[in-house]
Amino acid sequence: MPNRTLTAPLGFRVAAVKAGLKASGNLDLGLIVSDVPCRGAAVFSTNKIVSPTIIVNREHVRAGRVQAVFVNAGNANSCTGTRGLRDVHSICRQISKALRINPSQVLVNSTGIIGEYLPMSKVRTGIEMALSGLSRSAGAGKDLSRAIMTTDTRPKSACRNIKISGKTIQIAGICKGSGMIAPNMATMLGFITTDADITSALLRRALREAVAVTFNKVSVDNHNSTNDGVIVMASGLADNRSISKPSDSYKVFARALWEVCDDLARQIAADGEGATCAVTVRVTGAATPAQAHNAVRAIVDSPLVRTAFHGADPNWGRIISAVGYSRVKFHPEKLSCKIAGTSVYRHGRPCPFDHKKLSRKMKAKEWYVEVNLGAGRYWDFCYTCDLSREYVTINADYHT
Amino acid sequence: MPNRTLTAPLGFRVAAVKAGLKASGNLDLGLIVSDVPCRGAAVFSTNKIVSPTIIVNREHVRAGRVQAVFVNAGNANSCTGTRGLRDVHSICRQISKALRINPSQVLVNSTGIIGEYLPMSKVRTGIEMALSGLSRSAGAGKDLSRAIMTTDTRPKSACRNIKISGKTIQIAGICKGSGMIAPNMATMLGFITTDADITSALLRRALREAVAVTFNKVSVDNHNSTNDGVIVMASGLADNRSISKPSDSYKVFARALWEVCDDLARQIAADGEGATCAVTVRVTGAATPAQAHNAVRAIVDSPLVRTAFHGADPNWGRIISAVGYSRVKFHPEKLSCKIAGTSVYRHGRPCPFDHKKLSRKMKAKEWYVEVNLGAGRYWDFCYTCDLSREYVTINADYHT
Repeated sequence: MPNRTLTAPLGFRVAAVKAGLKASGNLDLGLIVSDVPCRGAAVFSTNKIVSPTIIVNREHVRAGRVQAVFVNAGNANSCTGTRGLRDVHSICRQISKALRINPSQVLVNSTGIIGEYLPMSKVRTGIEMALSGLSRSAGAGKDLSRAIMTTDTRPKSACRNIKISGKTIQIAGICKGSGMIAPNMATMLGFITTDADITSALLRRALREAVAVTFNKVSVDNHNSTNDGVIVMASGLADNRSISKPSDSYKVFARALWEVCDDLARQIAADGEGATCAVTVRVTGAATPAQAHNAVRAIVDSPLVRTAFHGADPNWGRIISAVGYSRVKFHPEKLSCKIAGTSVYRHGRPCPFDHKKLSRKMKAKEWYVEVNLGAGRYWDFCYTCDLSREYVTINADYHT
Repeated sequence: MPNRTLTAPLGFRVAAVKAGLKASGNLDLGLIVSDVPCRGAAVFSTNKIVSPTIIVNREHVRAGRVQAVFVNAGNANSCTGTRGLRDVHSICRQISKALRINPSQVLVNSTGIIGEYLPMSKVRTGIEMALSGLSRSAGAGKDLSRAIMTTDTRPKSACRNIKISGKTIQIAGICKGSGMIAPNMATMLGFITTDADITSALLRRALREAVAVTFNKVSVDNHNSTNDGVIVMASGLADNRSISKPSDSYKVFARALWEVCDDLARQIAADGEGATCAVTVRVTGAATPAQAHNAVRAIVDSPLVRTAFHGADPNWGRIISAVGYSRVKFHPEKLSCKIAGTSVYRHGRPCPFDHKKLSRKMKAKEWYVEVNLGAGRYWDFCYTCDLSREYVTINADYHT
């Protein structure tokens, strides 16, 4: 089997170790190291309260070249004040010293409990172990995708190959995220490696555009986190003619990057805490893009709607009433709703349908809700999941 | 024991019957009838999709005098188009004919499943039974508070006595509402009777002001419904000097009405679907009233926060991060949070506290979360509850 992990693109080594940060004793600390300084781009949490990791990463990404990425799970190092910030700098120093690079070429990522200091002696030992275990193997790549998990039930990865100027380019990604998931970089960490040769400006643009319609369209519980981001590193070692303009080559690259992000985003929705099904909610016929967005959010943010998904209950009344209070314009005599391909409400009226048959369709792993507002030409969508007893169990019992 | 039900104020008779609208076979249809035309005031759902009951009630309340109120549970008669509207008018006609009053003096209220037509022959028979069973007894009042229940686990009522110009005035209220509860008149029906003599304008004002800080501060699941409202009827039979100005008498009346509404609103929060505790979330130190409101809503709308309530977990990280994404202004070095009276985060830093002790406090029936934004002088609050497995069970299995 070909390597489809972060080490598939040329120039990347990774490692994952057990540093003792997770109570479970599982893999919990990792490194991604490039042989050469990479073009880097990143998108971070829009929460006003962010982890010091985000503060440092923002600065380091701006500085230009990224060569190493640190990640730990089990402790978010968030709301930890100046001591938390010092710890991030200390991590950067330790890694940069060992790799003989500049500290600003290191990015740091943490996920887990908020409000506790990182156990730095464990972290330091973990970094040493990881540095000495760096590997280009697919196994190391797979281990890393497990090390970043918190309440995720399965690792998430995606990989695409494209050809540009006769050269094969690989784009590989991993991510974690299952709870505290909402648009705008909620508790979600995504790491993407590629060997494409592309300018920083175009890499940033491709990432920003991809994230907007993939990771930022996932909502599990409407709770944005303080920590997270998506980072892409481009080693340039594929030896393609450098992508320096929004040319056809750029489009091919951007599309592949979008595919990787979309694949990962759907995996997050499907693995939402306690999820038993992945549901894409799509609103069309909105008067403005903002109204399309607001209608989608009203639907996916309603626990009543999402418990109906869980019960495989075609309760369109909850969907339509969510549209009703979303404050968006709709045409009362055009308003329509389909669940899993079946019309349940059309032109402002309930439609007859076979409840049992539709309920069976809603027991599939993945299905769609479509609402047409009949008020314009804009649309938007969201990847979400059902709200289950298991979600409550996970979050009521995940003690601080 | 004195009568503390809707029939305590002078001039009211009520009845509750089993019309066969609830699958359980319980009481499901009721009437409130006044001996004389009443001053009436009401506040209705702000959902853009409303039941025909709301359309008719708005018109009838405007017309002036209310003498009878119909209510059924088990079927919301919502999203039922012109047939649903015809059914409401037919109910008004049947009741007004029997009571020899004008149809515009009848208000109609329905709660239950959305999107199904009322079974009108059952409704007609139910109305006949109720008309012949009207009674001034406390037992009838209690029965009515049960008849309006849907997923409520207990009936909700409140009563206050005041003296105005030497006369005793009674204000009694009942309500239902447990799921689909969010500010702005979500699935909530409230009925208040009083024998006060007060002008329509002042009655409207007192109700509007009371509802704003009571029923509209309850959030169980951020889902506004299509149907509901709070109706107050004032018979004037207490024989007090008529309250016709915003005088001290008005203030005494308005305060008592607020107390009844507040009592009922807290009962709704405490009986939220699946709730095991009632939590009041209060945000102070906001730069504007709207920001205070938005911060409160970000906290109570987060399933992560509300599952932590359920787990009696003092996970202030979820509360603080919700403030972080609420887009409200806060002073990072003044931001503070108390849970059940214990400081957990102060002046931008975590405080040491005894987790076990605080967790025990959070197992009480009722407690407070307080967040100070340190950015101004405005504040707001919300009555909410925890999010439990039981909430999911109720709503995943309450099939259409």
